[in-house]
Amino acid sequence: MKNLSIGAAQHAQITDPFWSRYTSLVCETIIPYQWKALNDQIPDAEPSYAVRNFRIAAGLEEGEFGGMVFQDSDPAKWLEAVGYSLQSYPDPQLEQMADGLIDVIVSAQQEDGYLNTYFTIKEPGARWTNLHECHELYCAGHLIEAAVAYYAATGKRKLLDAMCKYADYIDTVFGAEPGKLQGYDGHQEIELALVKLYEVTGESRYLRLSQYFIDQRGQKPYFFVGEWKARGGISHWRGGPVPEPDMEYGQSHLPVREQTVAVGHAVRAVYMYTAMADLARLQNDEELLNACRRLWGNIVTKQMYITGGIGSTHHGEAFSFDYDLPNDTVYAETCASIGLVFFAQRMLRIEPRREYADVMERALYNLVLGSMSLDGMHYFYVNPLEVWPEACRYNPGKHHVKPVRQKWFGCSCCPPNAARLLASLGQYLYTVVDSTLYVHLFIGHETNVDIGGNRVRINQQSALPWHGQTSITLGMDSAQRFTLAMRLPSWVSGEARLTVNGQQVEAAAGEKGYVQLDREWADSDRIEWQLPMKAELIEGHPSVRAVAGKAAIQRGPLVYCFEEQENGRSLSALTIDSRSELTEKFDQHLLGGVCVIQAQGWKNRSDSWNDGQLYRPLKAETVSVTLTAIPYFLWGNRGEGEMSVWLRVR
Amino acid sequence: MKNLSIGAAQHAQITDPFWSRYTSLVCETIIPYQWKALNDQIPDAEPSYAVRNFRIAAGLEEGEFGGMVFQDSDPAKWLEAVGYSLQSYPDPQLEQMADGLIDVIVSAQQEDGYLNTYFTIKEPGARWTNLHECHELYCAGHLIEAAVAYYAATGKRKLLDAMCKYADYIDTVFGAEPGKLQGYDGHQEIELALVKLYEVTGESRYLRLSQYFIDQRGQKPYFFVGEWKARGGISHWRGGPVPEPDMEYGQSHLPVREQTVAVGHAVRAVYMYTAMADLARLQNDEELLNACRRLWGNIVTKQMYITGGIGSTHHGEAFSFDYDLPNDTVYAETCASIGLVFFAQRMLRIEPRREYADVMERALYNLVLGSMSLDGMHYFYVNPLEVWPEACRYNPGKHHVKPVRQKWFGCSCCPPNAARLLASLGQYLYTVVDSTLYVHLFIGHETNVDIGGNRVRINQQSALPWHGQTSITLGMDSAQRFTLAMRLPSWVSGEARLTVNGQQVEAAAGEKGYVQLDREWADSDRIEWQLPMKAELIEGHPSVRAVAGKAAIQRGPLVYCFEEQENGRSLSALTIDSRSELTEKFDQHLLGGVCVIQAQGWKNRSDSWNDGQLYRPLKAETVSVTLTAIPYFLWGNRGEGEMSVWLRVR
Repeated sequence: MKNLSIGAAQHAQITDPFWSRYTSLVCETIIPYQWKALNDQIPDAEPSYAVRNFRIAAGLEEGEFGGMVFQDSDPAKWLEAVGYSLQSYPDPQLEQMADGLIDVIVSAQQEDGYLNTYFTIKEPGARWTNLHECHELYCAGHLIEAAVAYYAATGKRKLLDAMCKYADYIDTVFGAEPGKLQGYDGHQEIELALVKLYEVTGESRYLRLSQYFIDQRGQKPYFFVGEWKARGGISHWRGGPVPEPDMEYGQSHLPVREQTVAVGHAVRAVYMYTAMADLARLQNDEELLNACRRLWGNIVTKQMYITGGIGSTHHGEAFSFDYDLPNDTVYAETCASIGLVFFAQRMLRIEPRREYADVMERALYNLVLGSMSLDGMHYFYVNPLEVWPEACRYNPGKHHVKPVRQKWFGCSCCPPNAARLLASLGQYLYTVVDSTLYVHLFIGHETNVDIGGNRVRINQQSALPWHGQTSITLGMDSAQRFTLAMRLPSWVSGEARLTVNGQQVEAAAGEKGYVQLDREWADSDRIEWQLPMKAELIEGHPSVRAVAGKAAIQRGPLVYCFEEQENGRSLSALTIDSRSELTEKFDQHLLGGVCVIQAQGWKNRSDSWNDGQLYRPLKAETVSVTLTAIPYFLWGNRGEGEMSVWLRVR
Repeated sequence: MKNLSIGAAQHAQITDPFWSRYTSLVCETIIPYQWKALNDQIPDAEPSYAVRNFRIAAGLEEGEFGGMVFQDSDPAKWLEAVGYSLQSYPDPQLEQMADGLIDVIVSAQQEDGYLNTYFTIKEPGARWTNLHECHELYCAGHLIEAAVAYYAATGKRKLLDAMCKYADYIDTVFGAEPGKLQGYDGHQEIELALVKLYEVTGESRYLRLSQYFIDQRGQKPYFFVGEWKARGGISHWRGGPVPEPDMEYGQSHLPVREQTVAVGHAVRAVYMYTAMADLARLQNDEELLNACRRLWGNIVTKQMYITGGIGSTHHGEAFSFDYDLPNDTVYAETCASIGLVFFAQRMLRIEPRREYADVMERALYNLVLGSMSLDGMHYFYVNPLEVWPEACRYNPGKHHVKPVRQKWFGCSCCPPNAARLLASLGQYLYTVVDSTLYVHLFIGHETNVDIGGNRVRINQQSALPWHGQTSITLGMDSAQRFTLAMRLPSWVSGEARLTVNGQQVEAAAGEKGYVQLDREWADSDRIEWQLPMKAELIEGHPSVRAVAGKAAIQRGPLVYCFEEQENGRSLSALTIDSRSELTEKFDQHLLGGVCVIQAQGWKNRSDSWNDGQLYRPLKAETVSVTLTAIPYFLWGNRGEGEMSVWLRVR
């Protein structure tokens, strides 16, 4: 395995007619709104306490700690999103606000480098006594990610230096050496953050500490069990004694190199796999890479919804088991798919294989976008594939599924995570391996990329997701030879067409799913990439019981769904005719402009049922109907109603 | 509304080739086994403590209370089953054991009549302070039912007298008068028990007390809220404070006469509806009867599984809402369907309408029988209609669904409830209204019935559920005129044929679903009832989303299901061909002898899927298969495997 450059495109300016809507929402709406939330300035919303906690810990204010034990991660995620946002949209006023917050945060840092408001204010003597439940290293990780992003955007080192001091201190607490804690965090995050800190500082101790946390995880005797015994079995959350911790929940049941199946809390899992992939790349660690490949393979071939959602059960917000993908009792947390995007991005840095980018694109266009309302102010944490609103209210097994997006201050984990991902979208478009530029996503932007030491300007334009045209115009001071590798998405329907400066070239993708153009490129060279896109019926593997006998519609990267608004109540009464042609129509006025898909099918009739009949000999009376589907990411923007991604097909 | 006689048949001796297997299991296996369980004599089983608690409360032994707060109900249910059993199978040794238990129970009664081991031993000062959670009146009700059954079987009054004393005491505690508690129990049961006590003693105060509990329920201010406040919000179960009680859970959200929809804990609901129907009958209370009709109608037309199961969610073991009948996350507790049988029986005493008997028969043949293993030693509490064993283990939302029956001492509510129902099966066969004998169920037995003051001997023989022949031979000392009304079941497929002494008579059922034979009957008259029975595909109402596009198989009273043993894994991959003929074959060697049904259909192929493919463009490749169904009540008797009542149909 070669040690690969992680590529550039850090400062891509998104100029895409589809995506700019979302990236500018982040800057113009979400970041200012969240600032108010963090500072308890939103009327009628429960206070966040997050900034106040730092002020109290810094001695700038009197009071009690407020919010969750992991409340520090909220300002951290906000700062990280601000960092990415400032790279694309400089904003002195925002930068000033962020500097002010950083001043407060750094003032709260203890003499020895420790920085956590919960333990500083509320349990000063109890640092590192409940790693399993109390998210200390998780919060540290988010602060480190914020520091790295803010430094990259502004060059300002204040938070970065503070975080190095904190990481140095953590390094004195954890490790294999006698006297140190042989532990790791309950919620993985520090591991990937330390890799970022290493990459920006070059300090190899941070990389080694990340590696320690990863490799210590799952070793016996179990750290969390010892810790649980040491605190008399008392739980932070329950206040009383609880049973021995479940090791699978936080993926600490086995040494990570021996893990083969994705289990437990889905967000924790993918954050950990992300760090594992980082370490595999940076340390040329083939064994760890193989573990990543196995876990990736298990997720995407056995435990992933068609929307890119992962985590089949709300109990523990967790994976359940292979092929168990219920559409209605699903969890599919937004943060989990964001973590899956991270994992895919890291795998692409190691080995550019189409499947990683396909999944990344699937999660971005469907689950991540679908988690937000069109106004950017309402969010899904749980992303169902089938909704019957009455069941969400009256069947407690579905209470966790909300039929409409919730105001974003209701909980604080997913919305800022979506914000930081969208604000950094430019980091997911490319990787450069040696002298090959791999183009993974087709999203309009401008950027500069270093290829083999030379700077190449890229201007991409794309009509996705509605049309399959993408063009790339290269800019460079002098001609140079390199390989441009264009991903051929798995959803392409028909022959892709590729031209360079108007001349058609062969568009055959290699085994890895990329069309390679190895040539001497000159300034203003223009590559046009035409990806045929047509609506298709999709089926799931027969072992996925929840979708057996059903079909979904996909067009390009977009998964579709059926809503009550177009198709009436009882969506389960509908069947798609597999022989019907799927017609596509762009409706300028619907939901901001959308390609609507129609199919022919049948609806079970209820008019011939006698009053009070619940069961009867089969008549199977149906009536022909036209079924109308809209993109899944837009569902739930027109009030409450039934929704289903999958319908019966025959 | 006429005040109806509740009919006789109390001592029917079941002689049915199908049912005797179960009734003798109760006597020969279940009752002796439960005796050991109650006395903590089963090795490797958690002790019951139930008899020991009574001994401690009686001062015969030293020790602490053991088991649940409602542990007293276990010996009570055992005694009730013993009472029924002794009526059919006299057994001096068993009677002696029961007498001994009664001695202990009565010794535990307090001076003032109070009798509850939990409060006597553990919280002597806290009687009646937590009706909502602590089942005091529930346990009293079961002891009363036991006393009535044991008295009816043996004529022995010891327990009956003790229970009258207890009821007299309860009557001094509860009531509208100042100084009394204006309350009622958290778990309804006392209400129907007091009606039985009234019927056996003629003491109208017991009837009035039952009426008080029923009518006080749901009045404002809510009794349970006041009680909850008075104990500082502390919960018996949690040990700490809990939120205000949910009034719907125990059907105390509204006065019962205003209730229109079955809500909350399903067992509590049907026990209450049973008492309401008793009171409506005995008090000629048309308003209460209308409430019963509405609640019955809501259950059987909107909230009942095809198996006769009720209660769609394990959260609160409760009804969820109209048409919400998920097959896999179902609760459908055995006790709830037993209560539904009680409710149906009571409604039949008021108005003999086929629908009540149809539902009673559906619940008995499918859910109640299906809750027991063939050996009578293993039980389902939850009775699913679709099982994927891995999901029961690895998806926590299905942990409550067990893929195989559990050893019966694991929990103590459903198995003894099934035992007492089976032991008293004779009470469900007939009702007599004026001079009409309504025959509801076709189960072989011998009994004597009083019709218009005359005694008629009945000898019924039946080939159900495998064949539709039933014969009734009458015996009487002298000829007499009365009406014999034979139920024409809703499942009959084709023309029923009725003969009297070999002569065919018209078999037209009236609006209420009974064929009436009004004539002068003589000794040895023989009625033959031929009910055509053929396997049919059944569909559910289109509003039942869980079965849309699917069909089940029913033959006579039996609902069928598909098991992995005959049909392979991934039952969801199967589709029934609606045009295929259903073939019936009696297999003598399978599961004790069973009519197996086969249909033609298709199975989704998985062999053309590439390794690692989870979704692909629709091919819908199927292969023709023969599908084999067995009766639902026999599922799960051959080890663990998938099971499904409903399959897709086209």
